[in-house]
Amino acid sequence: MNSGADRYLHVRKYTEKIFKPLATEDYIAQPAAFVSPPKWNLGHTTWFFETFLLKVYAPGYRIFDPHFDFLFNSYYNNIGQRVMRGKRGDLTRPTVKEVYAYRKHVDEAILEILNSNELKEVSDILELGLHHEQQHQELFWTDLKYTFGINPLFPAYPGKLPFSENIKETAGKFLQVEENLHEIGYDGIGFCFDNELERHKVFLRDFEISDRLVTNGDYMDFIKDGAYSNFNLWHDEGWKWVNDHKINAPLHWHEQNGAWHEYTLKGLRKLDPALPVTHISFYEASAFAEWKGMRLPTEFEWEAAASRFDWGKRWEWTNSAYLPYPGFKKAPGAVGEYNGNVMVSQMVLRGASVATSPGHSRPTYRTFFHPWERWQFTGIRLAK
Amino acid sequence: MNSGADRYLHVRKYTEKIFKPLATEDYIAQPAAFVSPPKWNLGHTTWFFETFLLKVYAPGYRIFDPHFDFLFNSYYNNIGQRVMRGKRGDLTRPTVKEVYAYRKHVDEAILEILNSNELKEVSDILELGLHHEQQHQELFWTDLKYTFGINPLFPAYPGKLPFSENIKETAGKFLQVEENLHEIGYDGIGFCFDNELERHKVFLRDFEISDRLVTNGDYMDFIKDGAYSNFNLWHDEGWKWVNDHKINAPLHWHEQNGAWHEYTLKGLRKLDPALPVTHISFYEASAFAEWKGMRLPTEFEWEAAASRFDWGKRWEWTNSAYLPYPGFKKAPGAVGEYNGNVMVSQMVLRGASVATSPGHSRPTYRTFFHPWERWQFTGIRLAK
Amino acid sequence: MNSGADRYLHVRKYTEKIFKPLATEDYIAQPAAFVSPPKWNLGHTTWFFETFLLKVYAPGYRIFDPHFDFLFNSYYNNIGQRVMRGKRGDLTRPTVKEVYAYRKHVDEAILEILNSNELKEVSDILELGLHHEQQHQELFWTDLKYTFGINPLFPAYPGKLPFSENIKETAGKFLQVEENLHEIGYDGIGFCFDNELERHKVFLRDFEISDRLVTNGDYMDFIKDGAYSNFNLWHDEGWKWVNDHKINAPLHWHEQNGAWHEYTLKGLRKLDPALPVTHISFYEASAFAEWKGMRLPTEFEWEAAASRFDWGKRWEWTNSAYLPYPGFKKAPGAVGEYNGNVMVSQMVLRGASVATSPGHSRPTYRTFFHPWERWQFTGIRLAK
Amino acid sequence: MNSGADRYLHVRKYTEKIFKPLATEDYIAQPAAFVSPPKWNLGHTTWFFETFLLKVYAPGYRIFDPHFDFLFNSYYNNIGQRVMRGKRGDLTRPTVKEVYAYRKHVDEAILEILNSNELKEVSDILELGLHHEQQHQELFWTDLKYTFGINPLFPAYPGKLPFSENIKETAGKFLQVEENLHEIGYDGIGFCFDNELERHKVFLRDFEISDRLVTNGDYMDFIKDGAYSNFNLWHDEGWKWVNDHKINAPLHWHEQNGAWHEYTLKGLRKLDPALPVTHISFYEASAFAEWKGMRLPTEFEWEAAASRFDWGKRWEWTNSAYLPYPGFKKAPGAVGEYNGNVMVSQMVLRGASVATSPGHSRPTYRTFFHPWERWQFTGIRLAK
Repeated sequence: MNSGADRYLHVRKYTEKIFKPLATEDYIAQPAAFVSPPKWNLGHTTWFFETFLLKVYAPGYRIFDPHFDFLFNSYYNNIGQRVMRGKRGDLTRPTVKEVYAYRKHVDEAILEILNSNELKEVSDILELGLHHEQQHQELFWTDLKYTFGINPLFPAYPGKLPFSENIKETAGKFLQVEENLHEIGYDGIGFCFDNELERHKVFLRDFEISDRLVTNGDYMDFIKDGAYSNFNLWHDEGWKWVNDHKINAPLHWHEQNGAWHEYTLKGLRKLDPALPVTHISFYEASAFAEWKGMRLPTEFEWEAAASRFDWGKRWEWTNSAYLPYPGFKKAPGAVGEYNGNVMVSQMVLRGASVATSPGHSRPTYRTFFHPWERWQFTGIRLAK
Repeated sequence: MNSGADRYLHVRKYTEKIFKPLATEDYIAQPAAFVSPPKWNLGHTTWFFETFLLKVYAPGYRIFDPHFDFLFNSYYNNIGQRVMRGKRGDLTRPTVKEVYAYRKHVDEAILEILNSNELKEVSDILELGLHHEQQHQELFWTDLKYTFGINPLFPAYPGKLPFSENIKETAGKFLQVEENLHEIGYDGIGFCFDNELERHKVFLRDFEISDRLVTNGDYMDFIKDGAYSNFNLWHDEGWKWVNDHKINAPLHWHEQNGAWHEYTLKGLRKLDPALPVTHISFYEASAFAEWKGMRLPTEFEWEAAASRFDWGKRWEWTNSAYLPYPGFKKAPGAVGEYNGNVMVSQMVLRGASVATSPGHSRPTYRTFFHPWERWQFTGIRLAK
Repeated sequence: MNSGADRYLHVRKYTEKIFKPLATEDYIAQPAAFVSPPKWNLGHTTWFFETFLLKVYAPGYRIFDPHFDFLFNSYYNNIGQRVMRGKRGDLTRPTVKEVYAYRKHVDEAILEILNSNELKEVSDILELGLHHEQQHQELFWTDLKYTFGINPLFPAYPGKLPFSENIKETAGKFLQVEENLHEIGYDGIGFCFDNELERHKVFLRDFEISDRLVTNGDYMDFIKDGAYSNFNLWHDEGWKWVNDHKINAPLHWHEQNGAWHEYTLKGLRKLDPALPVTHISFYEASAFAEWKGMRLPTEFEWEAAASRFDWGKRWEWTNSAYLPYPGFKKAPGAVGEYNGNVMVSQMVLRGASVATSPGHSRPTYRTFFHPWERWQFTGIRLAK
Repeated sequence: MNSGADRYLHVRKYTEKIFKPLATEDYIAQPAAFVSPPKWNLGHTTWFFETFLLKVYAPGYRIFDPHFDFLFNSYYNNIGQRVMRGKRGDLTRPTVKEVYAYRKHVDEAILEILNSNELKEVSDILELGLHHEQQHQELFWTDLKYTFGINPLFPAYPGKLPFSENIKETAGKFLQVEENLHEIGYDGIGFCFDNELERHKVFLRDFEISDRLVTNGDYMDFIKDGAYSNFNLWHDEGWKWVNDHKINAPLHWHEQNGAWHEYTLKGLRKLDPALPVTHISFYEASAFAEWKGMRLPTEFEWEAAASRFDWGKRWEWTNSAYLPYPGFKKAPGAVGEYNGNVMVSQMVLRGASVATSPGHSRPTYRTFFHPWERWQFTGIRLAK
């Protein structure tokens, strides 16, 4: 078996390993439009390989079920129609068992083509598909945490967690970075998404950046100080968001008998002040920084300093909007819909989280969410 | 075993018989707020007996799980808080297996109390609970039909259907009913819901009422004649509903290759013009009658004539609003929320449908839905 | 001048008399979709005569401005497109002066035709137009009260009011009405709207009905007793309405320095407990009756007893849905849209209010609003 | 009279000059939440001087009407409550005449203080207030154009326009700008808003920028090529916007008898292909650039090249999000709400438009709108 096949099996089996402990019921529900049911996630990652690799490069490939194009397409308009994003949880069929059969069918066809085809296009799309699947592995955790977290029974993940939500921050300091013209973007080593291109120069003034994340303890002080009712700390639209949704704490925080608790994938537990705060929106991250008399770093500051601090526990909000780098080119066709079409109204996050799959992070990686989204393992690093 | 226990087991086992063929996945989804997931339906009917019978009359009864009050309450404000109606599909836990265990636990306690307690209050609440469960048996079918009917795979019910959707209408005539003072409401024989009380006199003029239901064929003529784009036929709010939701046919109708098809619990099939039309809103029923130069009967006309025609295939829209009869009294406490609190903004339907459970229909039975609702087996009978 | 012309001028001049004291600014705003700006009201009543009378019966009539069909049509689909109801306040042009010129133009043409044409059709449509205009005279007052009542300056009507909002109720009693077959509907004397037809028999049991309206004082007791937070008193959808809109008192009530005040067309003033309560929804009227252990009368009970009590201060909510009488026939064409198309989802009110124009009330008159609407001078009469 | 007073009178009188030709009716309507009624605009600019200057620096100043704080505050949370933005058109009182009296009252007090007080704080806030008023002069034109443009009568501005919407573009070329470290932001000469600070270095690669704006003719080609139904050209959220709102042309374009017309402040006229396209959203600007195989410039590119082309006809969308410059500091208190609180989810526009008041533009000026907003005189300049 060649190394492409090895890597393919490694990533695909990891997906099944983390999904398998679920009860069948857990695969179905979609309690919010931004959550994908695990069944859909499982089918969609498979559909990606079938659509972009097998249908194009595997002559004689037998399509598993023509309906699956409609069911498991995410947002690729070029591929045709699809189930609306918020409607994925409405589908009880195909069954979970049938989706696993679909995976098996596609896996066999992929392994066959990898043994016979050495085209660069094939290995490129394979690599893209595997990184895409790793993104969905992380989404699996945050979607599941959301689904379990709104259930009054607060169920724990029924298997062994491959990561810990309990890695504490230790007292830190601000690192000094001097004014300079920095190189930003993909450095040519390994895989990158198109949004990390092209590498380019950015001039940055002197700045300071914290070597640790903001903790639950810090954030409790912010709450106690009345931050959620002090409009001076908030963006106008953040203030509206706080009031419209009656927000008074991070997602997954619950006050019980006068003490804050936090839902984690191991169940509900008393909030530990030493852990990094998580599940906060960009609005909350900004308001916290404002309250501290500091600010969030830009994505360029973050990247320029990333080698000097530990990161990887939380995705960190930056004060940079998600926009193309100089020279960015949208890939032609459906694959080009991946990043280019969403470069408006979102903010960049940098780093990685405890739920990021092994090997799926690097200093130039850019992820992005709307400023109100907070079901990811988001966090705050301060700059000044 | 006494006869109350017999009857209890009969109804409860029928529920399990019709639910059991489902895949686990089918128990979870809630594709619209008005649909209840089968798992919820299963738990809720059990919760009714636990709450109104066991907690009150069975000293020493051990509550299965205190969370279930929150999870399986429907709208009884007197009982406490509850999951919002549209959020029932968000809950993957408890599992289906656990809900069956809950049923078993409650069934055992009920049988025990029936063997030891002969209070009238107990047999009354038992009877109410069983009629309530029969209503949910019918909802099971229409909810499931909705869930399967919006799935692009159009799955069939995976078991043997205890009824047929294929009972044709035959050519009919209009029955004459002469002016008279009619007795309306419960006649004192067998069970009734509170909304069938009190029996009272209604003066009705001469009228004519059809002895058959409007058919798919009739309804296709209505469509072909452009009825969905002729505002003169519609109530103002019906016209708005047609346009806002781009309605152009009954629910579950699909045009494929130029021919109308209908989703049934046996799957998608070509529309049969001889079958009674179903899954139409009050707005559509009224517009159809207007188009025919006729009208819908009132609920009183329907009841006065019911002995003279066959009914029971479709729930029939009347032109009566759901309002209390003279002398109506809301039962005290939570049980009183059952009917009294919804007597506004709904229209009465009379009759029964193919999916109505055996023994759960009578000429004085009143059901009611909002004028836009159409996921029940609704139908049209004309009057003039 | 003939008597039709007399009557025409009388009604038309009354409209101008009550509109004229307004500032130009007051003619424009539409603070809620159900409110019509006075300018629109002024144009619409004129448009009615132009459209249904002049265009049809006055050969050679010169249309004032073809755009006005679009601007001043209310809901007559048969006439063509129209400005959406909620968008009437967006139109600053034509100016108020131009709309008065439009009235003058139409008035002259009407007077001319009345002097030369004695067709029954003309006098019928004239009569309908005048009753229609009288309805809009009352709407003028309630729309204006709404517009001024939401303005923090609480302006008073700038002219002399032709009615008083200050007619107190006096202590009353319940009238007994005996079981009987009553004649309901238009008795053949004078004008009626189509919805008062046909006269028909309704069988009513014994009932009692109050000879006075519920007062502000009674209603304050209801509020003090916590009625707005006791779901047992409310219809389910009323309870949702109370909570969604944070309702805790009638419209136009304002708590200032611990005391209830009421906005009236003479400005804000301390609430007088002896006045009849007004600006309450059907939900509130029903909840009040429930709290009293009584009920609202049906529209038939009201009509059967109307000769025995004083009425005319408030429009009185009944527990009857707005539905056609036996033998009701929708008039053909656009005029038929007047009543027939809205006979669903509304409740009937009976009586009249202080703002009803002289001569525009009778015991068989039926008006109707949605159960949540309360910007009219609505009131409560109890039955049991 | 000192020069501050001169300048104050000059700006204030210009406001009145452009408002005065309106009919009273035109001052009231608010056909969309983003439009301010001219009456509100007139009061608000006056309130700014009363609140930030007179109340603070003019001892003994008599407040004109304490309600006006509530009525004419825009979004300054620090000042207290205010009429919701979308509700400004609901207020018929105070009358227009009263608002002019308010202006007179404030003008007199300002002139008095300017003659007696030479504090730098006073002249700073005066200058800010005048620039603020100039922004509202431009908003006056675009708000009015919106209000007249949705009126089926398409009224023209009833006075003499101080600018022309008819300045044609001439055939152009792309200017080359070489890679460099550019100075961006306020250069220290004259007034600037806080968002132009601090001046800082930005590294830019080689780029080309057009010396003319995209024209109506260019844009008609884009439409004819089916751009509004080709999702590949659009941001995802732009594509949703196009479909949700059925957008198929710029705002104020109307197809009549097969030819495009454009509403202008002089009325509706046939579209002139040589004029720069205007009233397009950021989504449309981006899609147009994508269709051309080019892109929008960043705000830094625009500023770096601004000395080399003519600008000032249209506000030009850039592909830069509205974010703070390095070293940006929010002013303390209410004035700080001006810019700092809205730095999320908006895109930067550069340049100026025909409706910009004389003296109110400069190369470092940054304005910003949400990507879907298009009631301003927006335009497109291409880069590559």
